[in-house]
Amino acid sequence: MATREWTQLWLGYHKVCEGEGCWKIVLEGFSKDSAIISNALKEFTRGIGSLTGEEVVSSEDAGQKTLKITANKEIKKEGYHIQGNAEGITLEASDDNGALYGVFAILRQIACGQKAGEISENAAPSNPLRMMNHWDNMDGSIERGYSGKSFFFENEEIVIDERTRDYARFMASVAINGVVINNVNVKGAASYLITDRYFDKVKELSEIFGEYGIKLYLSLNFASPIEIGGMDTCDPLDKEVISWWEKKMAEVYARLPLLGGFLVKADSEGRPGPFTYGRTQADGANMLGDVIKPYGGIIIWRCFVYNCTQDWRDTKTDRARAGYDYFKDLDGAYHDNVILQIKNGPMDFQIREPVSPLLGGLTKTNQMLEVQIAQEYTGHQIDLCYLIPLFKEVLDFHTHCAPEKDTVADVVSGRTMGNTLGGMAAVINTGNDLNWTGDDLAAANTYGFGRLSFNTDLSAEEIAREWIALTFKLPKKEEDVLCSMLLRSREIYEKYSSPLGIGWMVTPNDHYGPSVDGYEYSRWGTYHRADHLGIGVDRTDKGTGYAQQYYEENAKMYNDPHTCPEELLLFFHHIPYTWMLKTGKTLIQHIYDSHFEGEEEARGLAADWDSLKEAIPAAEFDRVKKRFDLQLDNAREWRDQVNSYFFRKSGIADEKGRTIY
Amino acid sequence: MATREWTQLWLGYHKVCEGEGCWKIVLEGFSKDSAIISNALKEFTRGIGSLTGEEVVSSEDAGQKTLKITANKEIKKEGYHIQGNAEGITLEASDDNGALYGVFAILRQIACGQKAGEISENAAPSNPLRMMNHWDNMDGSIERGYSGKSFFFENEEIVIDERTRDYARFMASVAINGVVINNVNVKGAASYLITDRYFDKVKELSEIFGEYGIKLYLSLNFASPIEIGGMDTCDPLDKEVISWWEKKMAEVYARLPLLGGFLVKADSEGRPGPFTYGRTQADGANMLGDVIKPYGGIIIWRCFVYNCTQDWRDTKTDRARAGYDYFKDLDGAYHDNVILQIKNGPMDFQIREPVSPLLGGLTKTNQMLEVQIAQEYTGHQIDLCYLIPLFKEVLDFHTHCAPEKDTVADVVSGRTMGNTLGGMAAVINTGNDLNWTGDDLAAANTYGFGRLSFNTDLSAEEIAREWIALTFKLPKKEEDVLCSMLLRSREIYEKYSSPLGIGWMVTPNDHYGPSVDGYEYSRWGTYHRADHLGIGVDRTDKGTGYAQQYYEENAKMYNDPHTCPEELLLFFHHIPYTWMLKTGKTLIQHIYDSHFEGEEEARGLAADWDSLKEAIPAAEFDRVKKRFDLQLDNAREWRDQVNSYFFRKSGIADEKGRTIY
Repeated sequence: MATREWTQLWLGYHKVCEGEGCWKIVLEGFSKDSAIISNALKEFTRGIGSLTGEEVVSSEDAGQKTLKITANKEIKKEGYHIQGNAEGITLEASDDNGALYGVFAILRQIACGQKAGEISENAAPSNPLRMMNHWDNMDGSIERGYSGKSFFFENEEIVIDERTRDYARFMASVAINGVVINNVNVKGAASYLITDRYFDKVKELSEIFGEYGIKLYLSLNFASPIEIGGMDTCDPLDKEVISWWEKKMAEVYARLPLLGGFLVKADSEGRPGPFTYGRTQADGANMLGDVIKPYGGIIIWRCFVYNCTQDWRDTKTDRARAGYDYFKDLDGAYHDNVILQIKNGPMDFQIREPVSPLLGGLTKTNQMLEVQIAQEYTGHQIDLCYLIPLFKEVLDFHTHCAPEKDTVADVVSGRTMGNTLGGMAAVINTGNDLNWTGDDLAAANTYGFGRLSFNTDLSAEEIAREWIALTFKLPKKEEDVLCSMLLRSREIYEKYSSPLGIGWMVTPNDHYGPSVDGYEYSRWGTYHRADHLGIGVDRTDKGTGYAQQYYEENAKMYNDPHTCPEELLLFFHHIPYTWMLKTGKTLIQHIYDSHFEGEEEARGLAADWDSLKEAIPAAEFDRVKKRFDLQLDNAREWRDQVNSYFFRKSGIADEKGRTIY
Repeated sequence: MATREWTQLWLGYHKVCEGEGCWKIVLEGFSKDSAIISNALKEFTRGIGSLTGEEVVSSEDAGQKTLKITANKEIKKEGYHIQGNAEGITLEASDDNGALYGVFAILRQIACGQKAGEISENAAPSNPLRMMNHWDNMDGSIERGYSGKSFFFENEEIVIDERTRDYARFMASVAINGVVINNVNVKGAASYLITDRYFDKVKELSEIFGEYGIKLYLSLNFASPIEIGGMDTCDPLDKEVISWWEKKMAEVYARLPLLGGFLVKADSEGRPGPFTYGRTQADGANMLGDVIKPYGGIIIWRCFVYNCTQDWRDTKTDRARAGYDYFKDLDGAYHDNVILQIKNGPMDFQIREPVSPLLGGLTKTNQMLEVQIAQEYTGHQIDLCYLIPLFKEVLDFHTHCAPEKDTVADVVSGRTMGNTLGGMAAVINTGNDLNWTGDDLAAANTYGFGRLSFNTDLSAEEIAREWIALTFKLPKKEEDVLCSMLLRSREIYEKYSSPLGIGWMVTPNDHYGPSVDGYEYSRWGTYHRADHLGIGVDRTDKGTGYAQQYYEENAKMYNDPHTCPEELLLFFHHIPYTWMLKTGKTLIQHIYDSHFEGEEEARGLAADWDSLKEAIPAAEFDRVKKRFDLQLDNAREWRDQVNSYFFRKSGIADEKGRTIY
């Protein structure tokens, strides 16, 4: 393997002050023999040294401060209390992960400018499971990857090197406790990850992860009994299939004792699944849940099931309905160690979608929220798009599934139902690029997702400011500029791309750049239905009925174009171009205005970045600047293609007489 | 190499009658020592045996007939006279190729039902050069190939086997006398075809071709001095570059004495060329022509030069103009052994385009007409599209470049200018599929191009009937059905695809199936400019001025929408949907009607094929039937997407109230 260089992301530990004295560490109820604790101590030593120049010593010394790490079973699982005082810092935690997270929290607060004596935080994770999903293929490619190749796989082999350990550190620093290393589309060599061919290497990887409090998960090929077992069926109710899985799981857990479990994409976009055998999704998920249960494993079952060979002429079938239609009826039928993983929206990671009605629509089933920080539809980590505001909207959405504790955050955390399995997962945006995320600024999403999944009460701005402080050492004014850039970016991307929740309009397959009709006559169920009079999909009770999948309050709101939030207007309604929006603009004028504004504001982002030139290291500055150049091309293409498309179709001129082609 | 099976295409020699007696062959002025003559005799023996059961014997025998092959220098190069009589058949020819073609002509006439005694034809080639261009890559892939992989290349090696010889036989049987074996986009290993790495195998291939009267040509990388010569320039006026080429050509012809010359794609779609160095196309072509001249080689220089990074917003730049703009001014500057190869239309092998104004626009330069029988834009050898009618239209087009002999056929044959280098080339539609052409019926284009390039006076129907008689042994009624299918097919494809000469509207990159806006906002210079009022590109004197590139008679005709042939109306004019066509239909109604009719007529083709079930061998019948199934899907997609697109854009309903989505 070639030696590679890579950045330290937000663990660069820029020096923040000149230290005084040195540190000793005292453990009470924790043991250095724990690899996690040992790594926590190493991280403290490394971090405090870089941040302040203060050393950690083992002997008594003059001016010495103490980091006291104490076990306290009163504290919630994986939580920590940290408190600075005259003698140093106390860190209490109930378990190793809590202690590790507490150390990272201490270093974060110091990096953000706190004095050691001022440090204070009581924290416990909002979500039991906080996961990253890698869509890495074993040939080294990454599905929807925009930052190089996989750092887990190369030429069908597993790669383990120093970078692996750094990756685990980064994840632990934002309290990620589960990582799925391979693509949900399990094909070829990846089907053999649960065989002798790869056990040794997967085990080694799971141990490195384990030393950072992270469980390794694998994506599973539901057709494994056929693919690797040589059987002619994978019917989940077939006794021989079950018996095959029982033996397989016994073997897997004998060899991979640290394995967290499996992620399964079944009956989706060509993947095999229980439907092939006339079985339900619950039949499939529960069978796997049962065979894995003896080992404490869990099955995470994706709900991304829909008809991907729809006829565009068919206006009754609605892909948005599919998740709810396939999974709602079986609510309560899923076993305890099965979790349904549900994408934030009913379609597929568009820049604006309503929240999936399945979230909270299920009231007796473990649920996990899936989001995507890989910027598949949001600019390929070329265009700046800080996604935490989007995720916050989803988490804060009131599903009305209960009189209280009815937000998505409540549902997936377990607060609504009192269940213990649930959480958040992100399709991750990393690769083996020097800077891990292609665009250096895209790392704000990697960092942000971890932080948000640990504490869903954090605001998008708080997270942005933390990440900026950790990553760059900026004067306040420049920090404000960068923070504002991040916070504006999602709306800017939305403005110059597809309007008012309609989504898509992207180049087919690639998903970067505009193609208004690119998916309009396709099999993918993703249509805008624009004609010379109007645009949008009627998903009301008079249309596809999708709006009725929500609880009544939301169903009513969405069903009426006058109460439907306007940013989702075209998702739920077919609207004439002459429709008057609440701004007093017609729909068509809104399309023109928002596209002109979006492109202009993208130029504003680029200009803001230019203004940071003196404050950002040259290499980072140049890398990001190149991306902004590309983003401006892209924004201009979106603006002109969308405006031209709708002008050519509607024949209605821009009130302001700007150039439309 | 795995042994493969393959069909004998139109050389199946189905038995047509019970023979009487046997044959002896007498040569006068020809020698059996000539490999071509020897192959001609072998072919006669094989063909006459299969067709009639009659043997060729070397001794005198009872009931013996004589095939007398006589040299006659009065006959034109590569021509032949064949005449049946009471004693047998006489064949006169001036050269080996003429004798070989005469034998194939005899066999063709017998296969078509003539008695030996009735055979009669005096023939000489219309065109000096009759070439096939393979776009085969050395990894075995074929650019725009729809019938398997290359049979010339596999894993960067040259493949020579029995199939190679059969290929040469097929080409010779339709009088093809030149074959370019590799893709015009010369990259990677293909750049090394003119080096020691491949000389032995290329030589062997050129010898097999030579035994069938075919010259082997190579596509050349203009940047060879850089790519394989290690130089830092390929400037055609640089002395060291010229000296490199001189040495290279001396080496090439020492090793490949039978090489016909080179085909060059320069300054096109990313290929290097003289423009890089501020030189003209003539500078590039002439330099190569000069260095190859001592060896009798020729340089065929493609005129497919245009700006492929156009801004779609730019309505002044017109890709259609590019060939003429780049090449017309240098007319007369090209050396004698240089030929400009010009695509039939100014764009790129659409189902309907005007004839390129460069054809005949040049009056002092060797010209070759390039057509494409690989069905890139005409149905991928899935949809039936017999292209000979299209080629006939091109050949019969009066350029008005001269008071007489002004058709394209006149120009490229050399009749207009009295030059001896010119002809026709086809991008071929073959691959290593069992049946060579994917769709068995697509072989009519392979056969047809050869026959037409040899005799441009043949009608599309005559060629179709020959091919049917040679390929299938059908009763008259069934032959009529199949002949009608072929003759209707091009217009049917046109009807259900893009209307009135506008072209494109195809799925980007792949070029199969509809995507009305697929190229509308692209960099390729291929726009339809449809808005809510009308469609078409203004190429008149008030638009891009393209129409003015023709001689006055044609320029005037095209410039006026009232005299412009309606099948090209949208190529030359931006026309309102309400424009009244000569049929009394509005433009929009024409679009609807032709798409409904086209789809219906495609179903008619499929039904006609079904009616042939008893008459066609089962394997062939089934293969073709499967293609028709796919064609019907495709025709339906085209119909519905195009109609929906224009209905949604124009808001004008179909007069007949048919379903538009």
